[in-house]
Amino acid sequence: MNTNPTTIGQYLIERLLAHGVKHVFGVPGDYVLGFFQEMAQSELHLVNTCDEQGAGFAADAYARLNGLGVVCVTYCVGGLKIANTTAQAFAEKSPVIVISGAPGTDERIHDPLLHHKVRSFDTQLKVFEQLTVATAVLDNPLTACSEINRVLEAALHHCRPVYIELPRNMVHAPVFPMPVAIPVAETSDPNALAEALREATAMIAQAKRPVILAGEELHRFGLQSLLNDLVEETDIPVAATILGKSVFPESHRRYLGIYEGALSHPEICDYVESSDCLICLGSILTEIDLGIYTAHLNQDHCIYVSNERLAIRFHRYDHVQLRDFLEGLVNAHLSVCNTDTITQIKTPEFQIDYNQRITLGRLFGRLDTFIDQNTIVIAEPGDALFSGADLHIQQRNRFLSPAHYTSLGFAVPAALGAQLADPTLRPLVLVGDGAFQMTGMELSTIVRFGLNPIVVVLNNQGYATERPMEDGRFNDVLNWHYSRLSEVFGAGQGFTIRTEGQLETALYFASQHTGSFCILDVQLEPNDTSLSLKRLTQVLAERVHSTASM
Amino acid sequence: MNTNPTTIGQYLIERLLAHGVKHVFGVPGDYVLGFFQEMAQSELHLVNTCDEQGAGFAADAYARLNGLGVVCVTYCVGGLKIANTTAQAFAEKSPVIVISGAPGTDERIHDPLLHHKVRSFDTQLKVFEQLTVATAVLDNPLTACSEINRVLEAALHHCRPVYIELPRNMVHAPVFPMPVAIPVAETSDPNALAEALREATAMIAQAKRPVILAGEELHRFGLQSLLNDLVEETDIPVAATILGKSVFPESHRRYLGIYEGALSHPEICDYVESSDCLICLGSILTEIDLGIYTAHLNQDHCIYVSNERLAIRFHRYDHVQLRDFLEGLVNAHLSVCNTDTITQIKTPEFQIDYNQRITLGRLFGRLDTFIDQNTIVIAEPGDALFSGADLHIQQRNRFLSPAHYTSLGFAVPAALGAQLADPTLRPLVLVGDGAFQMTGMELSTIVRFGLNPIVVVLNNQGYATERPMEDGRFNDVLNWHYSRLSEVFGAGQGFTIRTEGQLETALYFASQHTGSFCILDVQLEPNDTSLSLKRLTQVLAERVHSTASM
Repeated sequence: MNTNPTTIGQYLIERLLAHGVKHVFGVPGDYVLGFFQEMAQSELHLVNTCDEQGAGFAADAYARLNGLGVVCVTYCVGGLKIANTTAQAFAEKSPVIVISGAPGTDERIHDPLLHHKVRSFDTQLKVFEQLTVATAVLDNPLTACSEINRVLEAALHHCRPVYIELPRNMVHAPVFPMPVAIPVAETSDPNALAEALREATAMIAQAKRPVILAGEELHRFGLQSLLNDLVEETDIPVAATILGKSVFPESHRRYLGIYEGALSHPEICDYVESSDCLICLGSILTEIDLGIYTAHLNQDHCIYVSNERLAIRFHRYDHVQLRDFLEGLVNAHLSVCNTDTITQIKTPEFQIDYNQRITLGRLFGRLDTFIDQNTIVIAEPGDALFSGADLHIQQRNRFLSPAHYTSLGFAVPAALGAQLADPTLRPLVLVGDGAFQMTGMELSTIVRFGLNPIVVVLNNQGYATERPMEDGRFNDVLNWHYSRLSEVFGAGQGFTIRTEGQLETALYFASQHTGSFCILDVQLEPNDTSLSLKRLTQVLAERVHSTASM
Repeated sequence: MNTNPTTIGQYLIERLLAHGVKHVFGVPGDYVLGFFQEMAQSELHLVNTCDEQGAGFAADAYARLNGLGVVCVTYCVGGLKIANTTAQAFAEKSPVIVISGAPGTDERIHDPLLHHKVRSFDTQLKVFEQLTVATAVLDNPLTACSEINRVLEAALHHCRPVYIELPRNMVHAPVFPMPVAIPVAETSDPNALAEALREATAMIAQAKRPVILAGEELHRFGLQSLLNDLVEETDIPVAATILGKSVFPESHRRYLGIYEGALSHPEICDYVESSDCLICLGSILTEIDLGIYTAHLNQDHCIYVSNERLAIRFHRYDHVQLRDFLEGLVNAHLSVCNTDTITQIKTPEFQIDYNQRITLGRLFGRLDTFIDQNTIVIAEPGDALFSGADLHIQQRNRFLSPAHYTSLGFAVPAALGAQLADPTLRPLVLVGDGAFQMTGMELSTIVRFGLNPIVVVLNNQGYATERPMEDGRFNDVLNWHYSRLSEVFGAGQGFTIRTEGQLETALYFASQHTGSFCILDVQLEPNDTSLSLKRLTQVLAERVHSTASM
């Protein structure tokens, strides 16, 4: 720990580096320029995106892979553009540090009408108090270092975003950093933990067909090896939630597939719902995870444990940590307690029919054979996600999607964040045309930083998720010639795909040319949607048409 | 006033139409789909943009021209994307109605983890409480109609944004609308008004060189004719603030030009600052209006009146309305009280030098002769604004720019909003390359709705405003081939411009072809910035480098 005199800006940079942050995403502006210059001269790599929204999404993806992500923007005109991406990080537990420049404390006297100011100088702070687990305004050199450490710890502990506001005259303010306080680790109540483990292990031991439902927290809190240990010892089969997809290796002999109520494959649905002991690990179980309330999980057979809640059947235990409980299960040495032969849905063989018009089903059939160990699949909400859920992901943590918050516009900027977080990966981006038109131009940033995702645009000329619920011209988008974007950027390669043969050509080219992005404009029939999406929209439509009576 | 039974959705639509709203900007999503369908079947025209940010900016521009604008989005993933555009409408007094769909009241029981939810069901409401002057959640049919009217009145009265949240099960909820309550008009205190007018008229009558500084509120509150009357009677010369540019006809014989402290033309600066009676009308006088504190206005000679404040010299009058005071001045029949011959900076002659490399100065020189009575100039903050401020705008309200809040990304979507608000106008969009990369793809929406702006991209490959303050790779953007965008959209026409002759060709083409957009990629030297911007960035740089000491 360096305790030499430094500055607030330098100290913040040092703490980010110490926590493994190597890249910072953002757009500069005069209130944050001084700090940008400090970062540019440090070991941090600055990644300036086309729009702040792209930086926010990229930082979220980076955080999911790296354990911490940073987005740095200017005051209000920058910060308020990432309210939505920060909300997503909050909803889906992604530890993103939002750093915003701000007017200097010396500029705030008599409350002048400075540029970028909205209502008062703390408007942006108040907004981010709603969207983060901790906020700090670094307006006092005496407390700045401890404030920085407080909010960083909060981000890591809750796996959620935090907000740091840095008035511009404070960037170079001298500070004497004190040793970092050792955070008080939250520990489990040993009695509650012991009783919960006794009850859970007895329940599992007596069960004939226990099954594990694995969620995203196992990844976020680094508990995947424990899950692996548990499965190796007990042979309990594992299904994953959609938000938790790829939290468990999908090629594992005990992996069932994705469970999401009636939206899941019927065999997986039956297996999970008929289990006499369902062990839900690290999932916040959203309505999407539960197939929009089509799930039939018998709570009487359920052990539910997440970072915030432990419940067995209909009673709760307080103050038991997910990690401690999971370690307890592993150490209980349950031995093999599920000898079921499970049906695994393998990647089907794929025979190309070169002149055949491409369909959604065939596209994903082909992509399932295309992805390899270095592929990270990034799926936009909509059919990219619902079809993408059936892809066989070979490695852990190789599938990203905002499956709960379901904000559109994530996928392309997420490819930027993901590939910078792990340069050994090549993103396969699955994105609808509507979502692509929101943030797809971040391909520009992808070009600047020399990355090479393969972007598959599911081009059905509009919002296919919404058409079955209510249709109108408001669901249409312009039919861009997506393949021409490579001419706009002067880089990358575009393909227009209407047949299986054209898909083959494009995928072959993409596999051979790794110097820049490839964009595949896959022209689908507007009503060519997946079975999952059809089921989903049917359930959703009922809610669109529900009415309160007076 | 229709008092037949209706629904909340229908009543809201009816009130929007009654207030002169014809277009609604937005992006659909399942929580707002039912209301979108209701709107689609009404007389309202729905304009779905590529991204919600575009809809927010378009609605702001529409509000500035039409007197009220509407942006309609889905819950959180839509609403939080327009936090910034709503903040801009707040800061610059633009009456934008934000309508957000939301989960039904029947879906909120037991606080489930619905998609799009952040922390709690009122997270988005709390965010918008910071960014608007009134909010309403239409969760009760008994009060929904009066709530709608309350927030609409607030938007009109304050000329600022309001927020309406519509739970989706309430769209079709039956209501019996009560007659609209007559809002209690705020009136001036007659004694304060009379005394203020006596003092002001005496001051003006005694002055040798009175001058008016006209601001944006004269436009927002519909007081421009009163200003005209005052000038016709008194011959007092008029300067405008930059936020108020085109609030007074710039071809008028008593129009001086834009005043913005040391950033303004020296003759205008001298005239305003040496006046013995400066009448500031309807300006909130931001730091930008004051040339980043380079203004030298003598408060001892100043009559300052805005919608929120009336001050003469160093004392204030409470409860005097801007309109009443202005009417009082007109009715005081001051007769001619300024006989100065004023120097007007006329549009200079422009002789093309066909093979000459284009420069920023020559570009704006040519554009100044190109604009006509049907042109609305929309200028992005940066040199588009600072050079654009010198253009001679022939009609009132034909110049739009977020000159105070200075958010980037406004101009292209604003062209969409402005041309739909007034189809007789053709937007001339002045936009830096950095800002274009944020929201320029809304050209796609412009194509869908058959509009024809001329978009001039000031392509200097980065953030030219920031380079003089702090430079680094973080100020670079990719050098797009902007002219190729017409190929991506399958519409419009692109031009690459390096010489004055190429500019001439492009402008001639644009004047002849009015069927779609034209985009002019004007390739400038990175350091080719306006004199105003050079002065501005010098002042700003001092603030970037200021430091607090411990």
